[in-house]
Amino acid sequence: MPARTYGQHATPTTWGAVLAQWGNPLMDAADALSAVRKSSLLVSLAGASGTASALGADPAGLRAALAEGLGLQDPKRNWHTDRGPILRIADWMASVVTALSAMGQTLIGLSASGISEVRFNAAGASSTMPQKQNPVAASALLALGHQMTGLRASLGTAGTHQHQRDGAAWFTEWMVLPQIALTTASALQIAKGLSQNIAPDVEQMQTASAGLGLMLAETLSFALAENMPRPEAQAIVKELCQRAISENAPLPDLARTRYPNLAPDVFDVTRQTGDAPKEARTFAARARRL
Amino acid sequence: MPARTYGQHATPTTWGAVLAQWGNPLMDAADALSAVRKSSLLVSLAGASGTASALGADPAGLRAALAEGLGLQDPKRNWHTDRGPILRIADWMASVVTALSAMGQTLIGLSASGISEVRFNAAGASSTMPQKQNPVAASALLALGHQMTGLRASLGTAGTHQHQRDGAAWFTEWMVLPQIALTTASALQIAKGLSQNIAPDVEQMQTASAGLGLMLAETLSFALAENMPRPEAQAIVKELCQRAISENAPLPDLARTRYPNLAPDVFDVTRQTGDAPKEARTFAARARRL
Amino acid sequence: MPARTYGQHATPTTWGAVLAQWGNPLMDAADALSAVRKSSLLVSLAGASGTASALGADPAGLRAALAEGLGLQDPKRNWHTDRGPILRIADWMASVVTALSAMGQTLIGLSASGISEVRFNAAGASSTMPQKQNPVAASALLALGHQMTGLRASLGTAGTHQHQRDGAAWFTEWMVLPQIALTTASALQIAKGLSQNIAPDVEQMQTASAGLGLMLAETLSFALAENMPRPEAQAIVKELCQRAISENAPLPDLARTRYPNLAPDVFDVTRQTGDAPKEARTFAARARRL
Amino acid sequence: MPARTYGQHATPTTWGAVLAQWGNPLMDAADALSAVRKSSLLVSLAGASGTASALGADPAGLRAALAEGLGLQDPKRNWHTDRGPILRIADWMASVVTALSAMGQTLIGLSASGISEVRFNAAGASSTMPQKQNPVAASALLALGHQMTGLRASLGTAGTHQHQRDGAAWFTEWMVLPQIALTTASALQIAKGLSQNIAPDVEQMQTASAGLGLMLAETLSFALAENMPRPEAQAIVKELCQRAISENAPLPDLARTRYPNLAPDVFDVTRQTGDAPKEARTFAARARRL
Repeated sequence: MPARTYGQHATPTTWGAVLAQWGNPLMDAADALSAVRKSSLLVSLAGASGTASALGADPAGLRAALAEGLGLQDPKRNWHTDRGPILRIADWMASVVTALSAMGQTLIGLSASGISEVRFNAAGASSTMPQKQNPVAASALLALGHQMTGLRASLGTAGTHQHQRDGAAWFTEWMVLPQIALTTASALQIAKGLSQNIAPDVEQMQTASAGLGLMLAETLSFALAENMPRPEAQAIVKELCQRAISENAPLPDLARTRYPNLAPDVFDVTRQTGDAPKEARTFAARARRL
Repeated sequence: MPARTYGQHATPTTWGAVLAQWGNPLMDAADALSAVRKSSLLVSLAGASGTASALGADPAGLRAALAEGLGLQDPKRNWHTDRGPILRIADWMASVVTALSAMGQTLIGLSASGISEVRFNAAGASSTMPQKQNPVAASALLALGHQMTGLRASLGTAGTHQHQRDGAAWFTEWMVLPQIALTTASALQIAKGLSQNIAPDVEQMQTASAGLGLMLAETLSFALAENMPRPEAQAIVKELCQRAISENAPLPDLARTRYPNLAPDVFDVTRQTGDAPKEARTFAARARRL
Repeated sequence: MPARTYGQHATPTTWGAVLAQWGNPLMDAADALSAVRKSSLLVSLAGASGTASALGADPAGLRAALAEGLGLQDPKRNWHTDRGPILRIADWMASVVTALSAMGQTLIGLSASGISEVRFNAAGASSTMPQKQNPVAASALLALGHQMTGLRASLGTAGTHQHQRDGAAWFTEWMVLPQIALTTASALQIAKGLSQNIAPDVEQMQTASAGLGLMLAETLSFALAENMPRPEAQAIVKELCQRAISENAPLPDLARTRYPNLAPDVFDVTRQTGDAPKEARTFAARARRL
Repeated sequence: MPARTYGQHATPTTWGAVLAQWGNPLMDAADALSAVRKSSLLVSLAGASGTASALGADPAGLRAALAEGLGLQDPKRNWHTDRGPILRIADWMASVVTALSAMGQTLIGLSASGISEVRFNAAGASSTMPQKQNPVAASALLALGHQMTGLRASLGTAGTHQHQRDGAAWFTEWMVLPQIALTTASALQIAKGLSQNIAPDVEQMQTASAGLGLMLAETLSFALAENMPRPEAQAIVKELCQRAISENAPLPDLARTRYPNLAPDVFDVTRQTGDAPKEARTFAARARRL
């Protein structure tokens, strides 16, 4: 299928590599989860001033016991106005939502009329336009990403406490932290359902990749540059591309007519996908290990 | 010195515990640095489409060599539109700026006229008001915190790429990532200078802590509750506090007159600071190990 | 050309209506400019405390004279920590950047490979891929929109001053307000250049609009509903659409075969654009009056 | 009472001038409300593509009738993806929340222990510390301001639609716009209650203003500068201030001893408040006209 930069066909890639781009940051998040839990899911028990002065003879023991009872970590100190642990949990959640939001953003692009390399097996039927199948879940993922951006801006402001308890910072945290967790949970739930309904249209991907062969322009340009200065090679390829478009003639045909000695695989799309298949296989193996 | 919640004297704490609150998140950031470097300071070399298709026979070897040459990590994959590594670096920088911003915010409060528990040995002289010594560096730290909030909102939006390269997301990253690094560096530089010029006013701290002894109200209330129901103890202490204020009489005197058997240390401010001294010593030891 | 909802062909619209959607908010901003200037481009002259106590016998006269000298409005009061005027100017600038950002966002979509209803007459040539013409200026507009989101988050935080001058709020304003003005100016400059280089591809728009006639599904459904219950009409149209797609047969042909009495203009795309032509003409007249 | 810059006593002001600073932006918002309603509370009726193609023979008439029925303005066009009207309403709401947030921020400062120039007649009692009266409502106003910052960042991102309806932008607006309205309403409701409970402590304000007379340093410096170069005057005043602090002697006494001919009103705090009383009276008159 075409890889797109700036929304435009660039060079060939594979559907598996796209899935690996979406999935690897989620795997990274899964890998990081245990460290986040350890560093940031901390018990807090130190009274209003963070000194534990009213917590009896052994506040450290009490804190440790509470941590054990609640299944939280004991930081062995009173973190109190240090909101670092809260912010790290939100950072981790944002890493998940950002990854899902990018998946949604790309699915909106791939399902667009005129591109249509992806369909959805369910949902998204328009109420009045039966020809449409709206990428509703993908749009919701992107919207949750936009919402997360704002929520974290508020939480960031709330990270700065004055003195031993800052009412405004505290209240802000109360208002946005639950929403941050809900946004993350919604994004995961929507993404799970969506993942089961993504239907890649292989035929459409191949048709788009073939086209006039213009995605092979870069490859052709590197191939020609083996026998001439690169600027000259680029100028020739540019001219051939323009002819291909104006004459609606495949670039490979025009190129082979002019340079009959070109290596056979220069225009084999499936051999021009570079690391894409390897990236996909590596990701699949990683996902299976989860 | 008084611990303050909502800006109001709550219970006693110590200057060392305040320093520990400021310093511990910075120590956490220092501890986390090596993991962030390893997980996120990654070489990126995969061409416009993220497939490395034009990078010769051994793109993985080339990437590894480039990583070594630049002193970066080799992620052994093409992370490309996965902006997780960039976001994690920005998250780490934000953890530093937030910690310094909280220090600035509290120093503004502690240096305020009428509180004056902290002065600064240098700078901040008003151009026309010689009696003032403005907390300029502290204010700059808080301002850099506000700036960081906005920068990260922009960077968060840029975390969501469409297809294999999203021009708008890419450009946004170019615009805000250098500023995020500069904001962090400025905050660290300002904080370093500021730290050498913070002059705690011990006498003023003690005067504020003593006052009418009202900060010991909670302690008194817990002490009385050993011999009566807590609501009754709280009602009595509330009444004694009101008398202390209206008669400008120290709470300990009023309480001892009424309850001569109160333990001697109930009104010893230095014995009511709970974990504060321990927190300070633990932090000092941690800092020395850096 | 196709109107798109969720990125998918919905019903027909016109290129002029698209331009009107981009241009009308800019015209609104131009219309609002004079009121913003009057309400918000204010002289400020009141000393550090906002009382003008050191400004001689007639501070109001001095302020008025300074306003006249600088070409600013005299608010006839000391606005000082009321940052409303600054925020209103930033709100106005954001209205411009948001409008241009939406234009950029849609141009990225319209120039995408597979859609290609818009090309650009200049710039955007890829350094290595001659077939590409990247929507660089359009992407920059969207990136400036993302940057503006963050800048305004910082400025919003700086709108809240404590006491008569809040150093942190003040410094934040200094850091982000110039950047807000530069972002707006850059967006306007880029949009001006871009506007002269947008080349709509009329043929491609018509081809996309025609397709299998599926964009007329809604119209067909309303036409049938004149003679049957709407749910029944919608079910029939849905079935016809599915047949059109699976048989690659135009929807109008399938529909006319089954319902020979359908009004002639039901499938005339140019008559199904509703208000679109009128919106375009009204906007053109408005723009000419500028 | 003292005007404070950077949290420090600067020059004298009045409580009325503080109220005017809080109230004037609210009056500005009230004045602007009718224009916002007219420009932005618009009916929207144009179908999914913004062309009104399925709305019968007279969509303009239908839109006008709907506007009248709903008490909305008829913009006489299909604004559709132009989110300017929505953003302007949010901008207006933010102007209200920012003004209330600044009031909250300053009340937190004025009620702080050691400053205590404002108390609250109700609420805010600490559950365990009877001596405290927490500025809970003021803190809530500031927290709502922090929340608004984030909500508007999300809404700003949603202002950029792609094509004729952008699902992600649309959903984001749905999620954050109701919250923006609720945040504004909450802030207004809290501020209304709070306003009825603010108790300025006039005696404490006067005591703070008097102090060692240091707030009159700037005035003294201007008075001396009438008879000597300003740098010399500033150096002398600086030295006198240092003596005042170290000897705990009032600055006016030290100054009069050295300069017996100083005008009588140089050290009359009530005559050094500049425009403050006028600002308060002008605001009071404005508020009465509401």
